[in-house]
Amino acid sequence: MKLLRYGPHGQEKPGLLDAGGRIRDLSGHVDDVAGSVLEPASLQRLAALDPASLPLVDGTPRIGPCVGRVGKFICIGLNYADHAAETGAKIPGEPIIFMKATSSITGPNDPVIIPRKSEKTDWEVELGVVIGSEARYVDGADALSHVAGYCLINDVSERAFQTERGGQWTKGKSADSFGPIGPWLVTGDEVADPQALSMWLDVDGVRRQDGSTKTMIFGVGTLVSYLSQFMSLQPGDIISTGTPPGVGMGIKPTPVYLRPGQTIRLGIEGLGEQTQVTEAAR
Amino acid sequence: MKLLRYGPHGQEKPGLLDAGGRIRDLSGHVDDVAGSVLEPASLQRLAALDPASLPLVDGTPRIGPCVGRVGKFICIGLNYADHAAETGAKIPGEPIIFMKATSSITGPNDPVIIPRKSEKTDWEVELGVVIGSEARYVDGADALSHVAGYCLINDVSERAFQTERGGQWTKGKSADSFGPIGPWLVTGDEVADPQALSMWLDVDGVRRQDGSTKTMIFGVGTLVSYLSQFMSLQPGDIISTGTPPGVGMGIKPTPVYLRPGQTIRLGIEGLGEQTQVTEAAR
Repeated sequence: MKLLRYGPHGQEKPGLLDAGGRIRDLSGHVDDVAGSVLEPASLQRLAALDPASLPLVDGTPRIGPCVGRVGKFICIGLNYADHAAETGAKIPGEPIIFMKATSSITGPNDPVIIPRKSEKTDWEVELGVVIGSEARYVDGADALSHVAGYCLINDVSERAFQTERGGQWTKGKSADSFGPIGPWLVTGDEVADPQALSMWLDVDGVRRQDGSTKTMIFGVGTLVSYLSQFMSLQPGDIISTGTPPGVGMGIKPTPVYLRPGQTIRLGIEGLGEQTQVTEAAR
Repeated sequence: MKLLRYGPHGQEKPGLLDAGGRIRDLSGHVDDVAGSVLEPASLQRLAALDPASLPLVDGTPRIGPCVGRVGKFICIGLNYADHAAETGAKIPGEPIIFMKATSSITGPNDPVIIPRKSEKTDWEVELGVVIGSEARYVDGADALSHVAGYCLINDVSERAFQTERGGQWTKGKSADSFGPIGPWLVTGDEVADPQALSMWLDVDGVRRQDGSTKTMIFGVGTLVSYLSQFMSLQPGDIISTGTPPGVGMGIKPTPVYLRPGQTIRLGIEGLGEQTQVTEAAR
């Protein structure tokens, strides 16, 4: 099942992508793709619906972030061995956790806004994990049962803000528009193996990232279990699981960063694509 | 005006503390102390109410976190010169930003749960700043106009999780119950100078922290302005502005950490008090 949210910013309605790629209106059944709607019993109820019975949505509305009312937007740092190497960092012995502001979340095809005074805005294609049931001290074997599904994320990052402005990465990860998520939340039953998904990212048609979730250091089940030792996870929380090689800061001999007016395209196998045009903050 | 939330966990109702220290029910006027209710026009409307006209709340209900639906729980690290010194850290050249999970938020007198495998759970009395209107690239002179009010926070921290488990402090700041906030949101008009508030914290009756917001390195206006360069702030976001000296990890010659069954009491001048009993996580 592919769940999504469509309509103007802040007024998104819940929808479902049918087998023909058309959007069906779910608002007769759920208020949003968010919170308790993502719990297993609720997803089962939605899966039992006949998509043809749902109203077809006219036209081509804006696609919003695929999850609403996200409580926590948790990121894992340096979780691909090759990416750790390109940034000059050691391979972490245990997962590195940081947070993006939930106010950074935006639709998959909304503009990416380059912050004022930014000179090092960078891209990161990432597999997003959406929590479906509360997880506290869960073990690895049980962890995937707490996952509602997966989505595509661009973990947009300002490298100077992240690493040159004193402590803690949050500062470079949280600007408005730095968290495009979607187009769809693809439920776990449609993702046979989250550790075998190809992923890519282009900037102005140049392939910059070309990887696979199979080179993750810590896999999805391990991450959910690990996180649940330090904080509880709730339905609608999102974990962005790290990026493969090919970010702008890793380009040799000179890093390459985003300028206004560029086009970013990215995708993960089975999870759809995003297209963003960069703009300068006003 | 002192706003609060009372009732069982997850079912809190909005209330107002009257001049006699009694709780008055605000649920006939607002749905929660959260989000747009904190905007200036809304606070003005509430301030115009005659407290005596509001229903008196019977008994002594549980007091919940004084703000609901917190979008971001942002913390400032090492923001008191003496505290930076006691932890062995340099005085930061610009504010250090990190996030606590919003799922750590709890009522001011709820138990503090010591996580499994924790050996270094510590306390931090802090001045909390509650945002009342969206702030994006605001300058210091304008910053306080975006503040709805202030509250007391215990920024409970697990030092091993924070600093010995790989990167980024979020890991040691985010456990359930690590963010008691309240008892009240005291509106800005009742806080003559947020940089002249005495603050203290006791553990089992021993005074551990005894400071004042006047020794902050970066004051409230500076922090709001600074943060707004890196992320937008929304009504209901909370900034915890750092702690004065006297945390457990700074005690010489041997740091002192919390064990189950201890009582923490803390307060800030004009913002009320909190009392927490520590428990081991199950």
